Amino acid sequence: MDFVGNHILSVGQFQRSDVNRIFSVADRMRPYAMRKRITRVLEGAIVSNMFFEPSTRTRVSFGSAFNLLGGEVRETTEVKASSLTKGESLYDTARVLSGYSDVIVMRHPEAGSVAEFAAASRVPVINGGDGPNEHPSQALLDLYTMREELRAQDRSLDHLRIALIGDLRYGRAVHSLCKLLCLYDDIHIHFISPPELEIPEEISLQLRNHGHQVTQFHRLEAGIHGVDILYVTRTQEERFPSQDEADKYRGLFRLNESIYTQHCEPNTVIMHPLPRDSRAQAQELDEDLNQNPNLAIFRQTDNGVLVRMALFALVLNVVEEVDNHAKPVTWFTAKRNLAEKM
Amino acid sequence: MDFVGNHILSVGQFQRSDVNRIFSVADRMRPYAMRKRITRVLEGAIVSNMFFEPSTRTRVSFGSAFNLLGGEVRETTEVKASSLTKGESLYDTARVLSGYSDVIVMRHPEAGSVAEFAAASRVPVINGGDGPNEHPSQALLDLYTMREELRAQDRSLDHLRIALIGDLRYGRAVHSLCKLLCLYDDIHIHFISPPELEIPEEISLQLRNHGHQVTQFHRLEAGIHGVDILYVTRTQEERFPSQDEADKYRGLFRLNESIYTQHCEPNTVIMHPLPRDSRAQAQELDEDLNQNPNLAIFRQTDNGVLVRMALFALVLNVVEEVDNHAKPVTWFTAKRNLAEKM
Amino acid sequence: MDFVGNHILSVGQFQRSDVNRIFSVADRMRPYAMRKRITRVLEGAIVSNMFFEPSTRTRVSFGSAFNLLGGEVRETTEVKASSLTKGESLYDTARVLSGYSDVIVMRHPEAGSVAEFAAASRVPVINGGDGPNEHPSQALLDLYTMREELRAQDRSLDHLRIALIGDLRYGRAVHSLCKLLCLYDDIHIHFISPPELEIPEEISLQLRNHGHQVTQFHRLEAGIHGVDILYVTRTQEERFPSQDEADKYRGLFRLNESIYTQHCEPNTVIMHPLPRDSRAQAQELDEDLNQNPNLAIFRQTDNGVLVRMALFALVLNVVEEVDNHAKPVTWFTAKRNLAEKM
Repeated sequence: MDFVGNHILSVGQFQRSDVNRIFSVADRMRPYAMRKRITRVLEGAIVSNMFFEPSTRTRVSFGSAFNLLGGEVRETTEVKASSLTKGESLYDTARVLSGYSDVIVMRHPEAGSVAEFAAASRVPVINGGDGPNEHPSQALLDLYTMREELRAQDRSLDHLRIALIGDLRYGRAVHSLCKLLCLYDDIHIHFISPPELEIPEEISLQLRNHGHQVTQFHRLEAGIHGVDILYVTRTQEERFPSQDEADKYRGLFRLNESIYTQHCEPNTVIMHPLPRDSRAQAQELDEDLNQNPNLAIFRQTDNGVLVRMALFALVLNVVEEVDNHAKPVTWFTAKRNLAEKM
Repeated sequence: MDFVGNHILSVGQFQRSDVNRIFSVADRMRPYAMRKRITRVLEGAIVSNMFFEPSTRTRVSFGSAFNLLGGEVRETTEVKASSLTKGESLYDTARVLSGYSDVIVMRHPEAGSVAEFAAASRVPVINGGDGPNEHPSQALLDLYTMREELRAQDRSLDHLRIALIGDLRYGRAVHSLCKLLCLYDDIHIHFISPPELEIPEEISLQLRNHGHQVTQFHRLEAGIHGVDILYVTRTQEERFPSQDEADKYRGLFRLNESIYTQHCEPNTVIMHPLPRDSRAQAQELDEDLNQNPNLAIFRQTDNGVLVRMALFALVLNVVEEVDNHAKPVTWFTAKRNLAEKM
Repeated sequence: MDFVGNHILSVGQFQRSDVNRIFSVADRMRPYAMRKRITRVLEGAIVSNMFFEPSTRTRVSFGSAFNLLGGEVRETTEVKASSLTKGESLYDTARVLSGYSDVIVMRHPEAGSVAEFAAASRVPVINGGDGPNEHPSQALLDLYTMREELRAQDRSLDHLRIALIGDLRYGRAVHSLCKLLCLYDDIHIHFISPPELEIPEEISLQLRNHGHQVTQFHRLEAGIHGVDILYVTRTQEERFPSQDEADKYRGLFRLNESIYTQHCEPNTVIMHPLPRDSRAQAQELDEDLNQNPNLAIFRQTDNGVLVRMALFALVLNVVEEVDNHAKPVTWFTAKRNLAEKM
């Protein structure tokens, strides 16, 4: 695809070459995200961060990514703070806001709303999550992290063996990730979920049609051996018809150090789209894994900044200019970088 | 008036020469708002955007305007996020915040509150709307848009023929606009509203005293012919004594393409202070007009950025410095500018 | 202590030399806070302002301080806007956010939460208030203000005579201030409170152990003579077991111009951590004192910016670089500085 001036709405937009392009730009963002140097390439540019659904991680990650490129962030964080409560259409909001901004990131609880908004916008729109539907930057940062983690083991995304664990029915991160995996060759996928929360049949079928090996499991221990990556997810409680319904599944699958050691291959990478639910009754990913060097969950969120910087740089067409606006870092960063080497 | 260091609280502050001054500065802001170039003239300056009432449009517009001049924005968006809930007076809040900021924009639900706040502030305060009372930057951007739209037809604000439509009783945008129209000559005004929501008598009288022609209508079709501009407003539901009372008037007047074509002169400009209420039962300005080239509602909001940049530049006394801090734009802007030419 | 790369969690961290260091850096920040010139030393750096409890003053003060050093602010203002509502631990939030930020300011309603958060952060964390526990930047700005006010009278913090007035039981500002006063010599302290809201015995004891003179009073007039500084506080209603309980104490002690003139020495400085409760039934510090030149409450909040700039500069190790990134101010500031001379 041509990124310049275009919207990022769905992982379905991408060919393998597009994903490669995003990842190679993300690589080039690393010195800035690690504060080896700063860049001012987007000095004077404004992103509108429109979050009509609660979010800390995604919102701050996009905002920081834009700041790291030198741009400014204008933010809206609640439906009730918005003209939408006065009956304004997404069309109007988009036309108006695109007059104030150079690029817009939008999260909204309704599937399809971001695409509707983008159709009326005069500047590029990046989907920050539209309800149960899509969250493309999450899928990209997940895949980018897999590539990085495998590369450290001299392997590539082709021939990847991965277990996807938890609420596979409502988890949009998993759905988007599966679509991206269809761009690669010979993937072995273990779907591990309660019977009622299995991956939708159409996604499973799509993967098989691409020649991937798909196996279903209903017990955690049964599916976590013989894979390179464990991708654990929380129960998407807010997508369930009722809290009672959601409560049934909370705490059903719990990965901890003991189960990991007993069942996984050495160096099996542990991922999670976060937030993980650390309340006693949930704990799908136990905190006793926090010191495990294969726990990649914080490398994932760090990578999120790289991928989001890449998306901004691509749609605003400044990739080749980033380094031309570089400057040295003035402040203390030693502990951050120490931590990143861990 | 002398703008430097002074508050912008009411349209009543302005002489015709003041409005001309604001508009000529707004004209000079256009290349920056259109991202032809950037300026860093307010680098290091801070605006406090204090919004004690929900707002997206006005808040983001002021914030973006300040960013476009190179300054930083600190924002407060809810009464409950504020010390006001702990019994702090506006006097104290103003004294404190003016120590953190170089200029303050304030919206507050109570009439007169912004003036009270400004009296204690050590830095210029711009009224972003104080309840039913004033919203001077809205009136200015409306009038600026009228001047621009008429100029495209080789006409000026003098001798303007305008229809003001909808809730004329509670609409502060209409009230402020009427006060500004008193600065011009020979205006013909059609007030079109339900009998219960007529323009307050004092405003009508004020216009007549300036020699303007005022006519009242209670039917939409009766009043929209023979004018240059239709200024449509929504019912200000939040200002009504009750929701039931407000519901009576919703959807009473609906301008759409068919009525427009049948009753208006060609090139009659359509304006609206936004948000327009696009819910089925309201629709005071139908979306079937969205492709009509005379629909100026998004040019209005775009102009809002120019006018707000002008206000900041004037009160902070940097008008003559703006171009001296200009730099080229690094990023892709072609689609934005294409849209602006539409 | 070594400031570089370290957290600021409690006043208990500081030796007298540390406080002196902070104050001497704060002094050097004055030209920037007064807009005599700007600095860009933290250009490209990002602070995450995490406020899980309502705050205007502290939040905007930290944000503005960071902006004044040239850095960018990413902000989160409500618990419900956060992943914490999805069961995320402070550990996870800290690890994630420290990947987006160069320094984090955090306010949280629970005592100890900020320290827990800081333990997992890879970047310095500054405590912006953790419930009833600590609020170190407030204590520092209070003490800095005392030093400044006394210096204008050619005196120093040693041998200070101070009256602390109001809710001494729940007021964390008072508690932290008392700990700092233990770093100085020969302090005379009058604690003035209702019997039920006396200063905790351990704090009183700590002061006595440092050789300070401590006297308790239950009547305002009895304790306000013979001191250099009156430090008035509001009832910390949100810390009381019930509103009824809190209501008992509201309005019990009220300092006004008449009481001040009758009982205080000339030039007795009046301070208050703000917000003061100006509702008719409270008014612990009457607005009729607003013109009294000894009312230092707004000099206090102005000083807050200096102290917070100093903390940022120290933990990020840019103190010696600040002046090297200075530029002239472009905009009108005359009224601000006039006010500051008052």
